[in-house]
Amino acid sequence: MKDPAIITLTTDFGLRDPYVAMMKGVILSINPAARIVDISHQVKPGDIGHAAAILSETLPYFPKGTIHVAVIDPGVGTGRRPLVVRAENHLFSGPDNGLFWPILQACPGAEVIHLTETGYFLPQVTRTFHGRDIFAPVAAHLSRGTDPRKMGKIINDPVRLQMPSVDRRGNAISGRVVRMDHFGNLITNIGREDLLHVSEDGTRMRVTVGDLTIGRISGTYADANEGELLALIGSSGFLEIAVNQGRASDRLGVDAGGWTGLTVVVEKTGP
Amino acid sequence: MKDPAIITLTTDFGLRDPYVAMMKGVILSINPAARIVDISHQVKPGDIGHAAAILSETLPYFPKGTIHVAVIDPGVGTGRRPLVVRAENHLFSGPDNGLFWPILQACPGAEVIHLTETGYFLPQVTRTFHGRDIFAPVAAHLSRGTDPRKMGKIINDPVRLQMPSVDRRGNAISGRVVRMDHFGNLITNIGREDLLHVSEDGTRMRVTVGDLTIGRISGTYADANEGELLALIGSSGFLEIAVNQGRASDRLGVDAGGWTGLTVVVEKTGP
Amino acid sequence: MKDPAIITLTTDFGLRDPYVAMMKGVILSINPAARIVDISHQVKPGDIGHAAAILSETLPYFPKGTIHVAVIDPGVGTGRRPLVVRAENHLFSGPDNGLFWPILQACPGAEVIHLTETGYFLPQVTRTFHGRDIFAPVAAHLSRGTDPRKMGKIINDPVRLQMPSVDRRGNAISGRVVRMDHFGNLITNIGREDLLHVSEDGTRMRVTVGDLTIGRISGTYADANEGELLALIGSSGFLEIAVNQGRASDRLGVDAGGWTGLTVVVEKTGP
Repeated sequence: MKDPAIITLTTDFGLRDPYVAMMKGVILSINPAARIVDISHQVKPGDIGHAAAILSETLPYFPKGTIHVAVIDPGVGTGRRPLVVRAENHLFSGPDNGLFWPILQACPGAEVIHLTETGYFLPQVTRTFHGRDIFAPVAAHLSRGTDPRKMGKIINDPVRLQMPSVDRRGNAISGRVVRMDHFGNLITNIGREDLLHVSEDGTRMRVTVGDLTIGRISGTYADANEGELLALIGSSGFLEIAVNQGRASDRLGVDAGGWTGLTVVVEKTGP
Repeated sequence: MKDPAIITLTTDFGLRDPYVAMMKGVILSINPAARIVDISHQVKPGDIGHAAAILSETLPYFPKGTIHVAVIDPGVGTGRRPLVVRAENHLFSGPDNGLFWPILQACPGAEVIHLTETGYFLPQVTRTFHGRDIFAPVAAHLSRGTDPRKMGKIINDPVRLQMPSVDRRGNAISGRVVRMDHFGNLITNIGREDLLHVSEDGTRMRVTVGDLTIGRISGTYADANEGELLALIGSSGFLEIAVNQGRASDRLGVDAGGWTGLTVVVEKTGP
Repeated sequence: MKDPAIITLTTDFGLRDPYVAMMKGVILSINPAARIVDISHQVKPGDIGHAAAILSETLPYFPKGTIHVAVIDPGVGTGRRPLVVRAENHLFSGPDNGLFWPILQACPGAEVIHLTETGYFLPQVTRTFHGRDIFAPVAAHLSRGTDPRKMGKIINDPVRLQMPSVDRRGNAISGRVVRMDHFGNLITNIGREDLLHVSEDGTRMRVTVGDLTIGRISGTYADANEGELLALIGSSGFLEIAVNQGRASDRLGVDAGGWTGLTVVVEKTGP
């Protein structure tokens, strides 16, 4: 017997309202065997960049063939196109607003399909909830083996996402905080390989964030004293600002969202 | 092979404590094949009307045969009766306090059973947690095919829920905000068909909520300018007050719960 | 066909970040048939005692053979050992920091295994996220029937957890508030059987908490008037301070965490 398909959900719907459950009911009505996994429903309302980052980071830990539904959809009910994307042996269903751009960039052979075959949607499509009326039923049909090419036409002009860049200036690099996690850790867009441009052996680097300077890159949280600010490569491969057993966001005074776009600079120290 | 039964859960238990997981463990101990779906565990503590509305709205998106456990139960441990309800080819398990009243009203052929056969409960029933000790195991037995009539006697006097009414005065109707969602949208009890009493062709209507007036009914959020207040028929078929890319609750100054029972009037404009 | 294994998750990761979903993806990649149940992801960051209490309370409601992953892991990346525990026909996977101590105390025949066989881990183990890289894949392998003894060596010196004690002074007992739940109920470490030392027939007892005295032990919340403070044996068998249809934490002015370690005394009254 074939393993049942996995369908993940990423939305900005929160967990208080019944919207996520409606999507699950729709999926199970079409494919009762589907395995549904929540990635997050607490994306900041309308924050496409946040959701796009979460999707890209989480993707590698799911088996090939997983179907990902992502509904951060401030343009619902307008002319923005509904999409299915096939990339890296995963499938994605969601609006054409940049959500899948990092995945498309990482996967040159990806296919983007503009969903036009309404037979795969709910019979009544509202103008306010395409997550339930389009993206959930499409994912359920995909999980039963429907070929996405039957659902619409391939397009070559999906909406791109503006993403903060990592800039190199000699031996220094400059990036940004792109996410604050539950522990108050500040996650940047500076990847492990970016640091090799600063120092080939990964040592003797200094990190500046806001007014504060961190003298080295640590290996784990406990490499710093309790309560001490530190920088390390986090579990998704990006430079992260943290406090051992504390909250870096508090230390930098940015807990209330002031972290958005905070600049982080890494420089070489010593010879 | 038959599809495994779906059991949904709606409670006011929150997600921090282990109470919901205890219910899931009890269900899986009795029926390891059951598919459990959370509707919401963030109903306002003790708010039976909120939970009743969520149940009714969500029901249509689940397949026939689904079993719904609802535990908003301020009277736990008193004489209030534990119930199973059969309506619209769904089953419901929860306390007799009005939770299922909207469903009973919508379904004249519904059957209400007072649970008295303790063999379907946990061996030890506490006086403080019937969700775990009665309603979860009963749902699990139902999901294995037990006839609810074996669990107790049919009753004809379930507790009714006081629900805010929609009033008509000539061509105007007056209703109430009954829910605020995660996006700050204010959802009323005024249905799509109620609006036909104001204007047969659905145009030329004015909505008044608090001190503010909205000149028309929009089709989708983006029909208004960014940050503009609007009124539309939401995804569950009820009139909703929203702000394009913003929070209507903030605009009306009612984010902290002041929305409860806010009056909404829809009137005809022009000829 | 054998029932699929159940794997529960208890963490302090919250629900906004994708960390929990990464663990689920890892588990389903190794065992697509596993049933995953969340116990809580809202343990206070780093609060091992809170998580240990939740695990012990929830355990009895899951079927034998369930595998429990617990990741409250402030020492991740240091020398602290990764463990599997076998106790009461359940299996546990998590760090050696006291998380499993109450279970070990309750189960003299338990086996503790220090995980050293890296073949059961993800190929790349980071120094910051062992929940994903070690404990989730180990649980998935256990759920497929791997003998935990193949994963490492039995040890006899697991880290112990400091737990608040219940003290007896004549006919009085003194314990502590160890948890505040979603309803504002204050749950103590004083068990049902402790009360028998105060009064053999369970009547004529007085409870003192902070400045307030409660004259008797109630049977259920509604035994007190609406808004009245009361004491009862909660659903997990421990003495609990509550308010009928209200929040005991508000009444005691301890909602913001001031409940930690609050002393509760139970004394005999009358003859």
